[in-house]
Amino acid sequence: MDYRFSPRVAALKSSAVRDILKLTQGKDMISFAGGLPAEELFPVEALKEASLRMFAGGASALQYGLTEGYLPLRQQLCSRMEQKGMHVTPDQMILTTGSQQAIDLLVDVLTEPGDTILVEKPTYLASLQVFQMHGLKVVAAESDEHGMIPEDAARLIAQHRPKLMYAVPTFGNPTGRVWSTERRLQLLELCRTNEMPIIEDDPYGDIKFHMDAEYPSLFSLEGRAEGGIVIYTSTFSKTVAPALRTGWAIGDSRVIAMMAKAKQAADLQSSTLDQQLLDQLLRGFDLDAHIALISKSYGERMQEMEGLLKQTQLSDIRWLQPQGGMFLWLELPEGLDAEALLRASVAKGVAFVPGSSFYAADPQRNTARLNFTHNSGERTVQGVKRFAEAVNEFLARR
Amino acid sequence: MDYRFSPRVAALKSSAVRDILKLTQGKDMISFAGGLPAEELFPVEALKEASLRMFAGGASALQYGLTEGYLPLRQQLCSRMEQKGMHVTPDQMILTTGSQQAIDLLVDVLTEPGDTILVEKPTYLASLQVFQMHGLKVVAAESDEHGMIPEDAARLIAQHRPKLMYAVPTFGNPTGRVWSTERRLQLLELCRTNEMPIIEDDPYGDIKFHMDAEYPSLFSLEGRAEGGIVIYTSTFSKTVAPALRTGWAIGDSRVIAMMAKAKQAADLQSSTLDQQLLDQLLRGFDLDAHIALISKSYGERMQEMEGLLKQTQLSDIRWLQPQGGMFLWLELPEGLDAEALLRASVAKGVAFVPGSSFYAADPQRNTARLNFTHNSGERTVQGVKRFAEAVNEFLARR
Repeated sequence: MDYRFSPRVAALKSSAVRDILKLTQGKDMISFAGGLPAEELFPVEALKEASLRMFAGGASALQYGLTEGYLPLRQQLCSRMEQKGMHVTPDQMILTTGSQQAIDLLVDVLTEPGDTILVEKPTYLASLQVFQMHGLKVVAAESDEHGMIPEDAARLIAQHRPKLMYAVPTFGNPTGRVWSTERRLQLLELCRTNEMPIIEDDPYGDIKFHMDAEYPSLFSLEGRAEGGIVIYTSTFSKTVAPALRTGWAIGDSRVIAMMAKAKQAADLQSSTLDQQLLDQLLRGFDLDAHIALISKSYGERMQEMEGLLKQTQLSDIRWLQPQGGMFLWLELPEGLDAEALLRASVAKGVAFVPGSSFYAADPQRNTARLNFTHNSGERTVQGVKRFAEAVNEFLARR
Repeated sequence: MDYRFSPRVAALKSSAVRDILKLTQGKDMISFAGGLPAEELFPVEALKEASLRMFAGGASALQYGLTEGYLPLRQQLCSRMEQKGMHVTPDQMILTTGSQQAIDLLVDVLTEPGDTILVEKPTYLASLQVFQMHGLKVVAAESDEHGMIPEDAARLIAQHRPKLMYAVPTFGNPTGRVWSTERRLQLLELCRTNEMPIIEDDPYGDIKFHMDAEYPSLFSLEGRAEGGIVIYTSTFSKTVAPALRTGWAIGDSRVIAMMAKAKQAADLQSSTLDQQLLDQLLRGFDLDAHIALISKSYGERMQEMEGLLKQTQLSDIRWLQPQGGMFLWLELPEGLDAEALLRASVAKGVAFVPGSSFYAADPQRNTARLNFTHNSGERTVQGVKRFAEAVNEFLARR
């Protein structure tokens, strides 16, 4: 049998991060690659207790549920959104298998193959896979330390008439950057003028290293769900645990209803068991205190890694100190190809993601994304040491 | 904001079953509509204990996992498949969010918009939604009590050159029919000759009313995964519980790898929590004994409903007694439109699925699918009574 695979899928590069994750399972490999939260901070006990409460509720917890997701959890999430200035009702919300599925469903309902989508340069690699799977053309606007550059976005919009924008305005992946409020307002206005919906992907917004800092979402700045251009998505993967695979999207109820239709075909519904577990967790556990705790720890881990990188005295390596999120984005010496460096690093026992994975085209090859949340202490010390050795040997060979 | 939705999605009919499910939530409505298992038979205690074992395993259970799914569960599932004459290794298997997602991913990797798919007439309605979402043309071969009719399939293949076949050979949805072994072999040969992969969807195969009866899967009849034309999918939704949303697909490792790439984009991975819960369940619980228990109960429920339908003395209603599965497929009096009947029935407090939902085109309108597994005893008595009243009033009005 000679399978004729869809060219869209066949051409898809498998995710570098997940392939590395596979490669490194069970080996003495220190991985700064995946966007993995710290396991030792997972609220295991609280989840166990939540699951006992759920099972005590009886058999109906195990039945099929709504495609839109478990209503009591949506209600609790609406209150949490409210606290962030995002006013929505449960029919303006859908629960998904991580925010990844929210992106996939939104692209499904808002585009057709051949359409163009506008992103930031660089951007989240698994979103690029979604766009490729759906046969979209991707155009990427330049960005700096204040976020996407409106003038470049405007130029690309005029030139390519994209259907949609995708952005991670707060602690972007891979760069960790935060868009300034001014930029947010400018880009919002630009998209509104051009009737371009925005997918605002916010998996990291809660992981702030300065608790008082405010980063208003595009959704809250626009101030409305019905008729609004922003569809916002987030997830419990970073704040509770990834294995629960529960994300959500909020926006105009017509968009949400259309996503639900697409989701019926895709998988009928996500795990209601996980949704009910989270619902119970939110009732018996101070999630905000937990988020404060992990954010503090992640801030310390970031400073630890930063300090170690400085100590290596590697020359010509630059980064911007992140104010939140999970990643350090390194610019390596000019001309260094981080994909080749990765092979040398893996031989030394340390992994990271080459920056090229985050570009739809014309990658800046001398870049690397290092996760600082999954490791700490001696493993981070060892990992940075191995990384520095790999870089030095690599540079010496040139 | 004037959203421009994808015409594929906008044209999608929302699932009749799930809409009815929504309509009937929390009301005094007896629903024979959804394919819902009996809640009182869910292994709640065993799942609770499995979850305690899982949480005792520590925090790593809550981390990101592999796109292909939790390896120990795949290993256990390979043994279970082995017992059914299906020989596969874990790299020939992927875990999905229900078998629904397996269908969606397979269509994603094996077709392009505009391709044609061959199905049985009638067929599973949510598979039709997948095909529509992917822009496929659907051609449906006639079937009788022995399954899809090879001559009609051959005619359609010659005429339309479909890329793929989709079938539910054992206890089909909606008809409950079983393909004879002779038909299975004929259709397998037909597809092999035409190099057409087959998606064999088998959510109900375990729910047999005669434990000794053997219904060999197309996959086992072909006898090989590598280079085979059959990709087989099943699920724990009917045998354990739907809320866990765990299905699997097995087939050639290249097809599985391609599905994993598509799944990375779709949702990165399904709930690893649910997968680990099932892995623990299989270690401490006799699933085969449980399946025997529910199959026996469902057989009794089927006979109960059948008996009640006979007692109503409704004339010109016919059905074939199912040998397994979850549905009775009724042929109602000639000229009766079951969609109109549904509205009358819902007013009386009973729901079912009009047969027209299961046809890609040219529906036989005087058909209805009744689920017999979710209700029992007095509720089934009341439900059948209301249904008969609705039919009688409906016929009297003509």
